[in-house]
Order: sequence, then structure tokens, then C-alpha cells
Amino acid sequence: MTAFEDLMRHERETQALAQVAGRLGWDQETVMPRGAAEQRGEEMGAMESVLHARRTDPRVGDWLDAIDPATLDAAGQAQLRHIRRDHDRARKVPARLAAEIARVTSVAQAKWAEARAADDFAAFAPVLREVVALKREEGAALATGGDVYDAMLQDYEPGTTAAQIGAIFDAMRPRLVALREKVLAAAPAPRLAGHFDETEQMRLTRAIAKQFGYDMSRGRVDKAVHPFSSGSGNDVRITTRTSPTDPFNCLYSTIHEVGHASYEQAIAQDYLLTPLGQGVSMGVHESQSRIYENQLGRSRAFTRWLHGQMLESFGDFGIPEAGDFYKAVNRVEDNYIRTESDEVQYNLHIMLRFDLERQLIAREIEVEDLEEAWNARFLADFGYAVDRASNGVLQDVHWSVGLFGYFPTYALGNVYAGCLHEALRRDVPDLDAQLEQGETGPATAWLRENLQRHGGLYEPRDTIRRAAGQEPSEGPLLDYLEAKFGALYEL
Amino acid sequence: MTAFEDLMRHERETQALAQVAGRLGWDQETVMPRGAAEQRGEEMGAMESVLHARRTDPRVGDWLDAIDPATLDAAGQAQLRHIRRDHDRARKVPARLAAEIARVTSVAQAKWAEARAADDFAAFAPVLREVVALKREEGAALATGGDVYDAMLQDYEPGTTAAQIGAIFDAMRPRLVALREKVLAAAPAPRLAGHFDETEQMRLTRAIAKQFGYDMSRGRVDKAVHPFSSGSGNDVRITTRTSPTDPFNCLYSTIHEVGHASYEQAIAQDYLLTPLGQGVSMGVHESQSRIYENQLGRSRAFTRWLHGQMLESFGDFGIPEAGDFYKAVNRVEDNYIRTESDEVQYNLHIMLRFDLERQLIAREIEVEDLEEAWNARFLADFGYAVDRASNGVLQDVHWSVGLFGYFPTYALGNVYAGCLHEALRRDVPDLDAQLEQGETGPATAWLRENLQRHGGLYEPRDTIRRAAGQEPSEGPLLDYLEAKFGALYEL
Repeated sequence: MTAFEDLMRHERETQALAQVAGRLGWDQETVMPRGAAEQRGEEMGAMESVLHARRTDPRVGDWLDAIDPATLDAAGQAQLRHIRRDHDRARKVPARLAAEIARVTSVAQAKWAEARAADDFAAFAPVLREVVALKREEGAALATGGDVYDAMLQDYEPGTTAAQIGAIFDAMRPRLVALREKVLAAAPAPRLAGHFDETEQMRLTRAIAKQFGYDMSRGRVDKAVHPFSSGSGNDVRITTRTSPTDPFNCLYSTIHEVGHASYEQAIAQDYLLTPLGQGVSMGVHESQSRIYENQLGRSRAFTRWLHGQMLESFGDFGIPEAGDFYKAVNRVEDNYIRTESDEVQYNLHIMLRFDLERQLIAREIEVEDLEEAWNARFLADFGYAVDRASNGVLQDVHWSVGLFGYFPTYALGNVYAGCLHEALRRDVPDLDAQLEQGETGPATAWLRENLQRHGGLYEPRDTIRRAAGQEPSEGPLLDYLEAKFGALYEL
Repeated sequence: MTAFEDLMRHERETQALAQVAGRLGWDQETVMPRGAAEQRGEEMGAMESVLHARRTDPRVGDWLDAIDPATLDAAGQAQLRHIRRDHDRARKVPARLAAEIARVTSVAQAKWAEARAADDFAAFAPVLREVVALKREEGAALATGGDVYDAMLQDYEPGTTAAQIGAIFDAMRPRLVALREKVLAAAPAPRLAGHFDETEQMRLTRAIAKQFGYDMSRGRVDKAVHPFSSGSGNDVRITTRTSPTDPFNCLYSTIHEVGHASYEQAIAQDYLLTPLGQGVSMGVHESQSRIYENQLGRSRAFTRWLHGQMLESFGDFGIPEAGDFYKAVNRVEDNYIRTESDEVQYNLHIMLRFDLERQLIAREIEVEDLEEAWNARFLADFGYAVDRASNGVLQDVHWSVGLFGYFPTYALGNVYAGCLHEALRRDVPDLDAQLEQGETGPATAWLRENLQRHGGLYEPRDTIRRAAGQEPSEGPLLDYLEAKFGALYEL
């Protein structure tokens, strides 16, 4: 066997083990008995230790050195790029530091949950300081002299810099703030009323998942506290949740997760259990979940079809007209919480976090300043004050578990979705006529063909550029939002 | 750290990984999407390869050499005994042979399923010959000059020889054949009639699982094609199945699996994720499932309580009297299939397999002779001829996957259950009064205290001897069966 074959065989087994570890995560959130939590911690720890040993295996370095990339095709070269990046990353972080981060973030996550319940940022600040110090140290080790925050970003959006993201966000902010103000000054959209049977919500949510092309023979839909998608290749599971008064929570969580899951399912089977066999970045992943959820799922055309389905499922819920139903689906209202936010305001929540975490990593602010900085920025962008920490700086788990560099990929996903949506509308001119029938086939086929099947073959920005036929930029998203909500709220 | 601490740390991580691999098996049989099967094969293969590498890790041999057992307590010495046995076993079998067995049995299992569907033993014989040849080779490697079949037995019932088992079985056979003949000559027991709602079966089965002490906070009950118990320590899950016409299939499968699962759950938490933290052998495991299912679950006293529960759950099913219900639960009838057999006939099915597989491994018969030998023995013990291969030599999966030495542990479990039951009746004199109220607490507490909590601390026969207060023998089981079925069928 050649060095490349040896390397890929090793990698394939590593990827298979990573799938097993991921499935343990699914199990934990859906079916695990509660008394198993502590034992599960040891099982996960053992899997992580096996995976870490494989990633830092010195043979990987030897194989990488022995391979002449010129002898490989484009896919082979892309495999090497991923493997080299992971191997370099694993070797740059001392085992002592990796273990310490794992230990402290585990404590910090528990402290965060307590502090959030008590609305007490001061109770969380000491352990967050420890997390930030460790992550700064890790970032410095990864950056090897370069920008620390940029180095962190590479875990989530390889090849993208904070400066690139900052430029996009700076262009978005004034237009989004202005759009938000206008929308909230207009007459509010209607709301659903009544009780929505949760069993029927799950039936309808599964039907809609299939409608969006989710392959149920290689996946499944279960309930969990938080919606998520888990796994790659031929075992990609999603979760959703139900609320008796808010069926949109269930249905749109499902459509969002189906976007993630369909991406994983659509990747070329040639890449199965290899580094190319997964979505290429968090931002590109989020572009898929968002275009399914928003540009398709919350379109006037699709909500017309959905309205009929909901009437069939639940009878009268106070909105007999499809036009009003479209408004209800796209209702914009004041909300402190990012995860409950709408298309207009969501990105403002992200920009706030991006700016704060960049400053924090760059030591321009410290953990002590974080709550005040959060509240000041929120007031500036949203026009009203944060009333308590759980509605502000304590609302998200991310920082407690050390995820610095993750937040911007959510908004980047929206930007990418805007670009893809523009290209999709150009290539599928009768899209709305299809969506009105609940037919998402042409749209999802376009995404599969132009983006999803490539998996990790191209770098994230290249992946979007090739599919959208243009350099990624914020313009299409902003144009789309202004047009959609301008018409909706008759601005 | 001492060598013993190093060894136990290594072992603990190995046990945690083994739990993960086991949970993948649970997932596969309960929730896995069907399209994931092939990918799952690779994931399982990767886990097996990690586990094999850990078991044969030369450091384990070094640690074992460096430890002076005299410095350890009884539990530490028992840990060493298990670790040394596993390590020796793994090292005795060449990697090439282990891989070849894995490959051929995977093919053979598929061939067996096809041959069974076609009732065609000749189609299965060639690949079974390969399996037998490989298992003979493995057995010879394990036996290092000793008896090959005895060496195989050690995988399932360490410390027990075929001669010991053979002596027990030889004593059982004439009494069981005679009892069977008398029972089948008597008036047949009544049957249930009607349709039994499957959702209600699952509700009742979960209630009964709890009634038998199964800790639902560290387990769960799901449906699967085959009932099984999976996992150790604090995550021990069981499965059952439902049939709209046969609720006993569901309920007694559950009670059986609860016996297995309660054993795992009851093992001392000090032994969690160590070699002592699992049931000590297949035979001792089966003693727990059988005493829960038969001596307790099929007792006159318990069925009186169950009858009331079933009437509440299902209304009229044609048996208004508790005495008739007890007969229906213990109905004996002609049946070719081991897994559908009753207490009287079950062990005869096992003895047939034990004698045939011993002869096969000893080269006293060959695969060519197997079907004829099976049919002749079946006719001798059961008095009627096998009508087709799927009702005879092709009914069980075991041989196709190389499980030689496994079958006798089923009957050994029944023998052990007989001994334990005798001791339990002595120590808990008002057992029947308890069971009539559906109260299994005193019985399961006795089993936990006297047997289950020890896990792998003592050798299998010692485990039974200590709990039963006597050398294991077939007498108590046979006395129990003759008394129970003598009274039931008024012989």
C-alpha cells in the first residue's frame, strides 16, 4: 500500500469512531436513562481519548511527509488539506492544556446553568475568566504569532478571517437596525391562537421533513430539549421539540435541522467516512439550515401550502387567510433571546456577540466588563434595555464551553443563504409555483447538485462562490430582507 | 502509580469503550435507520479493532508480570484473574485467525438466514464446514493441548468442563423425557383467546418490569425483533416484543430480560467499569433470567396477581379463573422450536445441541452428518419427527456465528435457578403470600444480596454455591419441575 492508502485507511477508522462518539451524543439527548449520566461521562471521555490519540498519532505526520500531493487528484489533495489541518491543530495544543480546557469548561457549563437560573453574572464571572485565559492560551498556541481570534475561527470557518467577517457585519448593521425600527413601528402581525395537539405536531413535522427531501431511511426524527442534527453519511438524525401553544417552534426547528441533515445526507458516497464526508464549515452548514427554514420555509409561497396542512391538522386556529398566516409565520417582535429571534433581528444578536468576543480575546475588554458592554450594545441596537442577565449576557451556553469564534458563523450562514437564494431564484424561475404546492424538490435538488454533494471538497468560501456564482457578500441577504419585510409590513 | 493502578486505569477505559460498543448494538436493534446498516458495520469494526488492540496491548502483560497478587485484596485478585484470562485468550488466537473467523461468520450468518428461509441445510453446510474448521483451529490454540471443547466453554462458563455439564445433563434427560410424556398424555391446558392491544401490553410490561425491581432510572424498555438485555452498570436496557394474540410473549420476555438486567444493575458500584462489574458467566446470567421468568413469574402465586392485572388491562380473554390462568401460563405442547419451548421441554432442546456440538468439535461427526443426527435425536427425545430444516437443525443462529459452547449455559442456568429457588424458599418462607400480591421485593432482594451484587468476584460455580448453600446439581430443578407439572396436570 502507498502512504496515501495507509493514511486514508487510518483516517477512515478514525472517522468511523468519531461517528460512534457523535451517536453517543444523540443517545444522551434523546433516549439515555437519567441515572446513566455519570457513567456516560466516562464512556465519552474514553472515546475522546481514543480519538485524540489517533489524531496525534505520529504515523499521520510520517504519512503526510511521505505523500507527494502532485500524485493525487483534487479530492485526494482536499483530503490531505483536511487531515494536515486537523493533525497540526491537535499537535499544537499541549495535552495538558487540552485536558485542562476539558476540565474547566465542564465545570463552567454547570456554573453557567446555575448563574443563569439565578440571574447572577458575578457568580459565573470567575470561572469564565479561567475559560477565557485557557482559550487565549490555546488560541496563541494555534496562531503561532498570527491573530489569536483568527486562529480560533479556523475551527469553525476555515480560511475565513475576522476582518472579512467584520467588514460584512459592519455593512449589515445600519441597514438591519433601520429595517428593524421600521418594522416594529408598523402594525403588528397576527398570532396563532389555541391548543395544538403535540402528537399531531410530530406527525406533521415528519411529513414536512420528508417534503423537504430528508431521507428517513437514513435518519430519524425524535423529540429532545434542544433541536439538533447529528451524524454524517447514512445515519443522520434530527431532533425537534413541541409546545402545545406554538406549533411553529416544532415545525421550523424541524425544517432548520432538515437543512443541516440533508446536507450531510447529500454528500457524495465516495467521501463516506473520510474528511470530505462532512459539511465543510459551520457557516456553510448554517447556510443550508437557514435557506431551508427561511428563504424556502418562510416564503409566501410555501406558507400558503403549510397553511392548508395546518388547517387540516389542527382545525381553526384563528387565522383563516393564507396572507395573514404568512404574516404570523414572519412576525417580528421585541425579544431579548437570540434563539427565539426572527430573520430581521437575528443577525444583530450575532454581531453583538462577535464584537464582544473579539474584544475579549484581544484583551480590549475583560470578563468583568462583559455584562455592561453587552447591555450598552443591546440598548444601542435594539432600543430598549436588558432587564436581567438571563435575558442578556447569560443567555447562551457557548462561552461557558469555550466556543469562541463560533457565533459569527450563524450570521455568515445567513449571508451565504442570501447569496444561494439569489442564484436559486435565477436558475429555478418557477420556484414559487412549486413551493405553493409544497413541492421543494427543484430547490433542494439545486442545493444538492450545486453545493451539498461536494462535502469538504472546496474551502467554505469557494463552496459558496461556486454554487452562487458570485463572491459571497451581504448584499443579497439585505436586499431580500428589505424586500420581504417591506412588503409584509407595507413599509 | 503502582502497576496495579496503571492496569486498572487501562482496564477501566477498555470497559467504558466496551459499553459504547454494546450500546451501538442496542441502537442497531431498536432505533437505527435501516439505510445505516453498512456504515454501522464499519463503525462496529472500528470499535472492535480498538478493543482488540487494547486487550492485546503488551503493557497489560508487563503490568500483570509486575504485580504481586499477595499485595491485593480478594477483589483485586479477582480483577487480575479476569484480566489475565482475557489477555491470555486474546494473545493465544493469532490476529489472522481472529480476522478470518470474523469474516467467515459474517458470511455464514447471511447464508444461514437464506438457507433457513429455503429449508435447505445443504445450502448452509459448505460455509458451516468453514466455520467449524476455523473454530476447531481457534479451540486448539486456546486449549494448548487440553480438550478443545472445554477450551471453548471457557468463553461462556469459565471454570466449568464438558464432563461436569455432561454428567448433569445425563442425569436430567431420562426424568425430563418421562415427565414430558406424562404431561403430554394428560388433558391439555387452556389457551388465551382474543385480541390484546399492543400499546396496553407495553404499558403493562413496563409496570411488571418495575414490579420485579428493574430500575427504570438506569434502564429503559423498547420493542425489538428479539428480546435482549444490553449494557452493564448504570445503563442497562432491555427490549421485548408484542403480538396481538399472545401477550405472554411480551410479558414473559420482559420478565426474563429483567432478570438479566437486574443482575447487571445490582452489581456493587465499586466494580463499575471493571472486569468484576458484569455478570460472571452466561450460565449464572441465565439463572437470574430463568428464576425471574419461571420460578417466580410462572408460579401459581404470581400468576394469580398477574391474572388480575391482565383482566384490568384487556377485559375478558376467555379465562375467568386464576387456576385456569396458571395452567394457560404453563401450557406444555409439542413444539419444534427451542425459543418457544416450555419449562418441561426446554432443557431437552439444549441437551440435543450440546451433544451434537461436542461430537462435531471432537470430529466424531462432521457437518454432513448434522441434519440426520439432529433428526434422529429429536425423534428419540420428543417422539415425533422433524418436518423441515427450519424446524430442526437450521432453527438457531448460534453455530453460524461460531458460538460453540454457548448452548449448554442455557440449561445450566435452569439448573442453577433450581438450586437458588430451593434456597430462596427456605430463606423466605412466606414467598407465595408475597407473590400473590405481586410483591417480588423479598425474592429479588434475596437474589441481589446473595448473588447479584458480587458480579465477577467469584467463579461461576462458586457464585451459585455461596448463594444456594450447596454444590450445584440438577436435583432441585427436577424435583421442582416434577412437583409443579405433576400438580398442574394432575399426574
